[in-house]
Amino acid sequence: MDNVRVIEVKQSVFADNNAEAERIRRQLKAEKTFLVNLMSSPGAGKTTLLRRTIADLKDEMRIGVMEADIDATVDAEAIAAAGAAAIQIHTGGMCHLDAGMTEQGLNEIGAAEFDLVVLENVGNLVCPAEFDTGASKNVAILSVPEGHDKPLKYPLMFQVCQALIINKIDVLPYFDFDMEKVLSYARVRNPSIEIFPVCAKTGEGFPAWEDWLRRQTAAWNG
Amino acid sequence: MDNVRVIEVKQSVFADNNAEAERIRRQLKAEKTFLVNLMSSPGAGKTTLLRRTIADLKDEMRIGVMEADIDATVDAEAIAAAGAAAIQIHTGGMCHLDAGMTEQGLNEIGAAEFDLVVLENVGNLVCPAEFDTGASKNVAILSVPEGHDKPLKYPLMFQVCQALIINKIDVLPYFDFDMEKVLSYARVRNPSIEIFPVCAKTGEGFPAWEDWLRRQTAAWNG
Repeated sequence: MDNVRVIEVKQSVFADNNAEAERIRRQLKAEKTFLVNLMSSPGAGKTTLLRRTIADLKDEMRIGVMEADIDATVDAEAIAAAGAAAIQIHTGGMCHLDAGMTEQGLNEIGAAEFDLVVLENVGNLVCPAEFDTGASKNVAILSVPEGHDKPLKYPLMFQVCQALIINKIDVLPYFDFDMEKVLSYARVRNPSIEIFPVCAKTGEGFPAWEDWLRRQTAAWNG
Repeated sequence: MDNVRVIEVKQSVFADNNAEAERIRRQLKAEKTFLVNLMSSPGAGKTTLLRRTIADLKDEMRIGVMEADIDATVDAEAIAAAGAAAIQIHTGGMCHLDAGMTEQGLNEIGAAEFDLVVLENVGNLVCPAEFDTGASKNVAILSVPEGHDKPLKYPLMFQVCQALIINKIDVLPYFDFDMEKVLSYARVRNPSIEIFPVCAKTGEGFPAWEDWLRRQTAAWNG
């Protein structure tokens, strides 16, 4: 693909990931770039959600996307086609990104040129939650087919996120998914988490999610 | 829960995981215990598939289940309710089981007492694929809502598995999931992989999967 740069990131050389993440956050703040770390299981709909979000917001803010993956480029191609700047980050088999790996991506994409950069983390509810990437905010996507018990089984993911998107609500009639339960389980893990039920395919629920993203970006960059 | 033992496993002390895995396999062979390492994303339906499989096969073989999880016990409770022996393995936040951790589970459940032991690995398509647990065979579950592109994005998982279960085929009409593509992508990764489209909720497709499991168990233990 001509329009997708691929970088191979190396595991971080920094002994203290948290200190490195704080340094990245200070730099992003100084550069007025809001960085969202987007995490979910494989297939929860990160790329579809991003494509619609980009289409809706690209005229009001400059958006860049860093797609992390074990070794494919299909996501970055889809994002580039949606009209945002995109790079693909290959982790060489690593199950997460740490702060140093994220910084390699930020340097490659030229983060200061964007109002909003989205890091699409490796698809996985376990490891990405354990490493602070330096993001301004963490957002998780849980899709209806995965089941409402996930906040019980992957507690850390729900603790570290400021927002939770519940995707694929169009298929609620076909799954035993209890929306009341998932809201209550998520809030046990994190009482202040913001929750947005959406359907990335149809756009249902997107105004509330995009309004949150717009307000968070303005607050960070203002 | 009175009927669910929970063990906290420690990361392996063995420097050479592959050698330890081979040692476990030899011991399982000698004891006539077939060990299946079952891997998937969170919510792909591992527990539902196991409950139905146990119900169908429990009168013809002795089945034990080791449920690995970050820190919940909901799966082991469900399996115990279905009538198989079950223990819960807590990984203390680890995203996979290695051979040494698996052996701690085998010792706790008393593997030699069973014809078939199923290890339900941590829900994750990345890390569990990287560590040989000592299992006789590896089986992955991919569910329809996750999308047909997963063999492209998580190549190792499809390479290390001898069988692939495609679950939730009842919702095929509601998702853009191309069965022909997933079969061809999986076979690019692994030409000899056996593929079983099923619906764990209704039992559709189970005879072929259970026949495979029955034949593999008999071949290993015979």
